Amino acid sequence: MRIGIVQSSPVFGEVKKNIADCFDLMASHSADLWVLPELFASGYQFLNPAEARDLAETVPGGITTQALIEYAYSKSCFIVAGLPELDDDSVYNCSILVGPDGYLARYRKIHLFYEEKTNFTPGDLPFAVVDIGIAKIGMMVCFDHLFPESARSLALQGADVIAHPANLVLPDLAQRTMSIRALENGVFTATANRVGTETRTDEALTYTGQSQVVAPDGQALVRLSQDRVEVAVVEIDVSDARDKAITKHNDKLGDRRPDLYRL
Amino acid sequence: MRIGIVQSSPVFGEVKKNIADCFDLMASHSADLWVLPELFASGYQFLNPAEARDLAETVPGGITTQALIEYAYSKSCFIVAGLPELDDDSVYNCSILVGPDGYLARYRKIHLFYEEKTNFTPGDLPFAVVDIGIAKIGMMVCFDHLFPESARSLALQGADVIAHPANLVLPDLAQRTMSIRALENGVFTATANRVGTETRTDEALTYTGQSQVVAPDGQALVRLSQDRVEVAVVEIDVSDARDKAITKHNDKLGDRRPDLYRL
Repeated sequence: MRIGIVQSSPVFGEVKKNIADCFDLMASHSADLWVLPELFASGYQFLNPAEARDLAETVPGGITTQALIEYAYSKSCFIVAGLPELDDDSVYNCSILVGPDGYLARYRKIHLFYEEKTNFTPGDLPFAVVDIGIAKIGMMVCFDHLFPESARSLALQGADVIAHPANLVLPDLAQRTMSIRALENGVFTATANRVGTETRTDEALTYTGQSQVVAPDGQALVRLSQDRVEVAVVEIDVSDARDKAITKHNDKLGDRRPDLYRL
Repeated sequence: MRIGIVQSSPVFGEVKKNIADCFDLMASHSADLWVLPELFASGYQFLNPAEARDLAETVPGGITTQALIEYAYSKSCFIVAGLPELDDDSVYNCSILVGPDGYLARYRKIHLFYEEKTNFTPGDLPFAVVDIGIAKIGMMVCFDHLFPESARSLALQGADVIAHPANLVLPDLAQRTMSIRALENGVFTATANRVGTETRTDEALTYTGQSQVVAPDGQALVRLSQDRVEVAVVEIDVSDARDKAITKHNDKLGDRRPDLYRL
């Protein structure tokens, strides 16, 4: 299958423009699964919970989800992308999975970073995996990368590909952890990070790109620039994620000894 | 406190010589905690279970443990080192911790690599932490590095320093995973790997050194060569491992969400 990663540069609050910009980037490529950044249509730097709520959308009814479904239908592809989700009184930092037949799944970011703790409600759904036929997909968002339990929970449920929308400001950190997550779990990981700078407070945020797809052996199949709007599509063989053997005697998941862990 | 790592080149089966060589290397340095390689006195490449049994020793009664205790007493230090442990009919790939007052703890390698599965009994004791006063010490051995549960189990029990005796043949793999283990858990890690080549079968094993001490921010404080017998001592501030804050809102262990993991 072909995995595409979109490294866009959203303008805060310009939802329709940001969606259109991504679709423009994607249009000249073909992929079976696209991964877009965290909060790719809204922007990231919310000043307070009210701003997050103003830009939050219901799932799957909101315009971002509907636009993604329409694109997925028109191109016969699957898309993972991040958006602020409104559900009753709560706003989640959410990632959704849609396909040609519509909405499939949501993941609400479990490990919120820094001021996200002010602006979002922590995820309340367990890590879960969706079988889209060509592969089993798990979702995690940005800072989840630092917690090995995130990718492990997905791998243990059979994920072949971990889609990882991100808005990373530190360079070459999540890239290293995600390389290890791919390696230790024997899965593909696809991190879509944004670029550009947001200056809505005195504390400007510059996002550091380096979006990447990593193979189950921990090697990056592609890594994008730190500061340019770009897309990449890589061909992967999903079966590489189903062979967890390290040696003829060792298995990345089968060798686990949960009875002796203290977690 | 000062952590010393010993990168020795044992000769298979020459237990007394290998012990003496390490002590010679250590003698010109001073450390509070020394970490020696996996199976540092016996060598690694056992041809069959009978060979492992022949070189295995009881703990703490055997000559290797007793020699380490004597050294620890004479220098007022603590030592972590690997040896094949004989207990009734079982032989474990074991790491022990000794101090000036004698034997303190053992860890029996939980994740056995490749033909170790033929020659050793898998560890049957949970990951555990020992408070030696100047720090809380956890032990793991070599291939345990690939399983994030190993270091996590130790960190969650309060380990400040993870002592990691190793006999690594792949270069720059465990070095990368241990950097992430230190970072994700906010602990110091001290990996003592051996160098040299063993040619007891057609499949020669060349060990790849690069012994290292990593700080809780994931940065290597020292990394030794890939092929030379060496030691290094680094000064650390244990309190760096007790501050798990990432931001004012984030904590490496406190942010975990075990209720939403599927492990």
